Amino acid sequence: MKKDVLITEVALRDGSHAVSHQFTINQVETIVEHLDKANVPYIEVAHGDGLGGSSLQYGRSKVDEMKLIEAAVAKSHNSKIATLLLPGIGTKKHLQQARELGVHMARVATHVTEADVSAQHINLAKEMDMETVGFLMMAHMVPTTKLVEQAKLMESYGADIVYVVDSAGALLPHQVKERIKALKEELGVEIGFHGHNNLSVAMGNTIEAIHAGASRIDGSIRCLGAGAGNTQTEVLIGVLEKLGISTGVDMYKIMDVAEYQVAPLLPKPQEITKDSLAMGYAGVYSSFLLHARRAAEKYNVDTRDILVKLGELKAVGGQEDMIVDIAQEMAKNENPMHI
Amino acid sequence: MKKDVLITEVALRDGSHAVSHQFTINQVETIVEHLDKANVPYIEVAHGDGLGGSSLQYGRSKVDEMKLIEAAVAKSHNSKIATLLLPGIGTKKHLQQARELGVHMARVATHVTEADVSAQHINLAKEMDMETVGFLMMAHMVPTTKLVEQAKLMESYGADIVYVVDSAGALLPHQVKERIKALKEELGVEIGFHGHNNLSVAMGNTIEAIHAGASRIDGSIRCLGAGAGNTQTEVLIGVLEKLGISTGVDMYKIMDVAEYQVAPLLPKPQEITKDSLAMGYAGVYSSFLLHARRAAEKYNVDTRDILVKLGELKAVGGQEDMIVDIAQEMAKNENPMHI
Repeated sequence: MKKDVLITEVALRDGSHAVSHQFTINQVETIVEHLDKANVPYIEVAHGDGLGGSSLQYGRSKVDEMKLIEAAVAKSHNSKIATLLLPGIGTKKHLQQARELGVHMARVATHVTEADVSAQHINLAKEMDMETVGFLMMAHMVPTTKLVEQAKLMESYGADIVYVVDSAGALLPHQVKERIKALKEELGVEIGFHGHNNLSVAMGNTIEAIHAGASRIDGSIRCLGAGAGNTQTEVLIGVLEKLGISTGVDMYKIMDVAEYQVAPLLPKPQEITKDSLAMGYAGVYSSFLLHARRAAEKYNVDTRDILVKLGELKAVGGQEDMIVDIAQEMAKNENPMHI
Repeated sequence: MKKDVLITEVALRDGSHAVSHQFTINQVETIVEHLDKANVPYIEVAHGDGLGGSSLQYGRSKVDEMKLIEAAVAKSHNSKIATLLLPGIGTKKHLQQARELGVHMARVATHVTEADVSAQHINLAKEMDMETVGFLMMAHMVPTTKLVEQAKLMESYGADIVYVVDSAGALLPHQVKERIKALKEELGVEIGFHGHNNLSVAMGNTIEAIHAGASRIDGSIRCLGAGAGNTQTEVLIGVLEKLGISTGVDMYKIMDVAEYQVAPLLPKPQEITKDSLAMGYAGVYSSFLLHARRAAEKYNVDTRDILVKLGELKAVGGQEDMIVDIAQEMAKNENPMHI
C-alpha cells in the first residue's frame, strides 16, 4: 500500500515529559506491541530531552533509556524504532549504543539557529546506515529565510529528512504553510512537521503542513507530550482518512491503544491550561515551564508574565538561569516599596 | 475599540452537556461575573439542548434554566446574555419568558435541512426586539449549495446573523472555508461559526472561518461543551491577538476565568476520547453518544461502530430509537450462531 505520509509516534519520547520520565519497561513493551500491531511506521523512544537527558537538570528517568529502547526493539516487528539526540545532551557514544540495540532512525535535534552543531552526529548516523532526520526546534523563532538556510545545512550533512519543529506550539497555520512550502521548494529531501498544541492548532498546523508538502509527521497518542502535548496521533489518522491521505496505520487499532494503553498511564489528561497557553502565546521552550512556575511561586509573580518576558527576550534552552532573574526583577517592580 | 470578531461564550449552554446539566445559580453567577469583567460580548445560558431542554430524554437540569438566566442577567454589565432555542424542544412561551428576564440575543437552532421551522421563532424574537441568530446545526451533512439555501431562508425570516454549526465536530478546515465563503457571498447578514473539537480542528476551523469572513464566533472556556467540547475561548483570544484580530476580550482575565472558575467545575477535563473521535469521524450528533454507549454495552458491540453506522444512515436528532435497532442488528451479525 502506497503511503502518502509516514507517521512517527513520539509518546514514548516527547510524552516522557508528561509522565516525568517515569516510563517502565513494561509500559514501553505494552505500548510498542500495540503500536506495532496498528502498523505505525516509526516509534520514537528516549528521555524527553533525548538520549542522555536523564539528569538532575532535565529530570531523572525511572529506567535507563537504553533498557527502554531494548524493550521497544524487541516488541516491534512492523514498526521501526527511532530515537532523538540533542548534541550537547546526548553524545556519539549514546547514538552508537542505540544503533547497536537496533534503533533504525536517528533524529538529531538542534535549536533552529544552530544546525551546524548537528554535523558530526548526522555524519555518524549516516555512517552507521541509519535513516537520519535533522530536527530544527523552536522553528517559530526565525524568519523562513533563516529556517531554509539552517535546513540546507542539515541536508548538506546528509540528513534524509528535515523537520520543522514547533517546540513551543507557537506557530499558526499560515506560518507553517509558509515554512514547509519554502523548504519543499529549496530542499531535495523529505520535509517533516512536529507540532505542539499550546494554541490548539497542532492539528490545523499539521493539515497545512501536509498540504504544503510535508510527508513525515509526528503525532503523540492522547497528546502525550511536553507543554499542551502534540498533534494527537489517533485523531490525525481519522482526519487523514477523511482527507483520503494514506498512512498505513489502522485507525481502530490506534484509537484502542490511545484508550486502553495510553490514557490510563496519564497522571492527568493533556489540557490547554493557563500556563501551557501562555507558553505557546509567548513562544518559549516547554522545558521553561517548571522553572517558571517555581520562580513564580517563590517571588509571588505570575508564571505567564515570566514566560511572555522570556519570549520577548528570545530565550533558548540552556538559559534557564534567566528565569529567576526575571522573576526577581518583576517582584521588585511590582512591589517598588519593598526593599 | 473596533472589534473584528464578536465572541459568544457558550460554556453555560453547550457546556451544560459536560456537567450533565447540573449548573447551580452560584456557579452561573461566578462565571458570568468573571466573563463580564473580561469583557466577553455575549454569554449564552440555557439547558444544553436549549430552552425547555430539561427532560428525561435530554437530561434534567438541576436548576430551572430561567433561574440561571435571571442570575446571569443580574451579574452582567458589559456582556449581553444570549439563549438558544430549538423549535420543537423550546416554545414561544420560553422565548418570551427569557426576553422578560432580560435576555438580549435569541439563537434559533434547527437541523441544517429544516430552516423553515425557525420562521415563527425568528419572527417572534425580532418582534421582541432581540438580536436574532439563525443557527444551522450539523452543517457538515449537506453540500454548500443546500446550506446557502437554508441560510437564505433564515435571513428571509429576519435573522441578523446566520451561523454555520459544526455540531458533530466533523468539518475540516477546507470545508469550513468553502461554506463560510459561500454564505458571505450569497447573504447580506453577518456570518458566524460554532465549532466542536472532535477531530481536534475546532481552532483550525475557526481561524479558517474568520479568514473567510465570519465575524461572529462561538467559544467555550476550557472546551466545556458536548462531545470533545468547543473551540477553547481563552486560547482563541490568544490566537486572535497573535493574528492582530480584535475581540475586545481581556486575554489574561479570560485565561484566569478558565483556570480558576471553570476548570474546577469540570467533572473531568475535556479530552478527545475514542468515542468523541468516532463521533466526529462518523459525523453524528453529540446527543447520540450516551445512547450509543448504553446500547453498545447492552448488546456487547463497539460504541464507535454504532456511531459510524448512524453517520452512514445520516441519522438526525430525534432518531435515537434507531440506535438500539442498529446495536441489535450488529450483535446478530457479529454472533451469527447466537439466536
